[in-house]
Amino acid sequence: MGVPGVFTEYARLVEQRLERFVSEQDAPEILKQAMLYSLTAGGKRLRPAILLEFYRVLGGDPADALPAACGIEMVHTYSLIHDDLPCMDNDDLRRGKPACHIAFGEDTALLAGDALLTLAFEVTTRVSSAISPQAVAQAVRLLAGAAGMSGMVGGQVLDLQSEGKQITLEQLQQLQEGKTVALLRAAGQIACALAGADTQLTAAAEEYCVCIGRAFQIRDDILDVIGDTKTLGKPVRSDVQNRKNTYVSLLGVEQSAQLAASLTAQAKAALQTIGNCENLGILADALAGRMQ
Amino acid sequence: MGVPGVFTEYARLVEQRLERFVSEQDAPEILKQAMLYSLTAGGKRLRPAILLEFYRVLGGDPADALPAACGIEMVHTYSLIHDDLPCMDNDDLRRGKPACHIAFGEDTALLAGDALLTLAFEVTTRVSSAISPQAVAQAVRLLAGAAGMSGMVGGQVLDLQSEGKQITLEQLQQLQEGKTVALLRAAGQIACALAGADTQLTAAAEEYCVCIGRAFQIRDDILDVIGDTKTLGKPVRSDVQNRKNTYVSLLGVEQSAQLAASLTAQAKAALQTIGNCENLGILADALAGRMQ
Repeated sequence: MGVPGVFTEYARLVEQRLERFVSEQDAPEILKQAMLYSLTAGGKRLRPAILLEFYRVLGGDPADALPAACGIEMVHTYSLIHDDLPCMDNDDLRRGKPACHIAFGEDTALLAGDALLTLAFEVTTRVSSAISPQAVAQAVRLLAGAAGMSGMVGGQVLDLQSEGKQITLEQLQQLQEGKTVALLRAAGQIACALAGADTQLTAAAEEYCVCIGRAFQIRDDILDVIGDTKTLGKPVRSDVQNRKNTYVSLLGVEQSAQLAASLTAQAKAALQTIGNCENLGILADALAGRMQ
Repeated sequence: MGVPGVFTEYARLVEQRLERFVSEQDAPEILKQAMLYSLTAGGKRLRPAILLEFYRVLGGDPADALPAACGIEMVHTYSLIHDDLPCMDNDDLRRGKPACHIAFGEDTALLAGDALLTLAFEVTTRVSSAISPQAVAQAVRLLAGAAGMSGMVGGQVLDLQSEGKQITLEQLQQLQEGKTVALLRAAGQIACALAGADTQLTAAAEEYCVCIGRAFQIRDDILDVIGDTKTLGKPVRSDVQNRKNTYVSLLGVEQSAQLAASLTAQAKAALQTIGNCENLGILADALAGRMQ
């Protein structure tokens, strides 16, 4: 991604801890395998990295917040597993590998998703005792709010309802606020809650997350048109084939790219309020130019 | 059920609050409908009632713990929705009504289950501020532990693995510890955590819950053989038809009934340690003799 080394280090820490959180449980082996299959399938570890970096910038030790970072990544991974199921997007391929339900069967994949969503809340409560129990309860509330019916799941439902229909830009944005933006926003919010940040800093962190979330989705839509299957690890032009409403289908590639650029600039501007956010600024630029 | 009026009152309070928790959210209408469809489909509200009654017996005001009681019922309801899906048990009927996926489609049912599981954790953090944040975090941890890979989801996986195979009584018990007992145990544990009960009281409450959980499952297996479809709201002898391993298939009706009776006695004995548990004693007897 061309991002600062600190994000690579966060990804490494998160991956190690994710593996341990699952492995140490007393549970059927096949379930652990299915959960780890999807958890370790790669991915940018974007949400945990943002959470940990904001927590560090706000004066905390990232190691203290690591379990909450793992929690948000588990929620993200569960959503991918359930999205790929035949009754949803029916995608056989995820990150260049067979989807979880292709590798383990639909029933086990469904349950692996359920187990990851559940474990996410358990591990969020396992942050360091240096963090106040109030902040822990708040983190659980933020994670659930972002993941649930008013956030990610709600966005999925809007997405189902819009299939094969022409929707407006406003409707597309509303749908994406739930599907993609809500969980990214939660990364910033949870970092602030755990660090005990004030409302001004929290608002700035939220704005950064919301803007890069929107830009990220627009870039996704652009890559579906200009990318190639090998780099992306999933079929390109699937949005067109599935007659999905995307930023590109509504605005065209050029205007979409302009919108993404302006959101990236807005994200970087929000960081000024917080200070010491160079890494997050570079991350915003890297995401805007990413090729996968 | 022939249970004390307090349980009817708990059920009423829980049903009102469940409806409010879902209705007040800003979310797609069809998702709310699917969630409420399954939440309001009846059911004994056993887990929340046990949670609230233990909390009361331990000196608390049940109103303070009501959100946590709703949380555990949401987890139970989500598990029924996902269990009924075609890739799982493929049941069209639940409590005498079309299953959620028959009424709303597989995709919406899957998401309604996901949303209920997520909302469960959010509402658990919304107990009264009279309850300490440490206890709230502990309640989240207990709920997740019971619902997840080492509990209910793990039991589901063992159930899938045992389909069409002859298993031992020990394996059946292990499977049921996850599928049924874990969440009932959590009802007692969460009540104790929220009330700040000591380890001796907590152990007694747990023992009661575990014993009635086991007895409940055995009664379920017996009713599948001796019950009728109309009373049960689901097809009888489905276990036999699906070649499921049950207490009846392994022990026969008579020995199963004896085991249930002895577990019920053990549950009531455990209540002696706590005191003032008459209602819970009567509940144990009512469950042992229930016809649905």
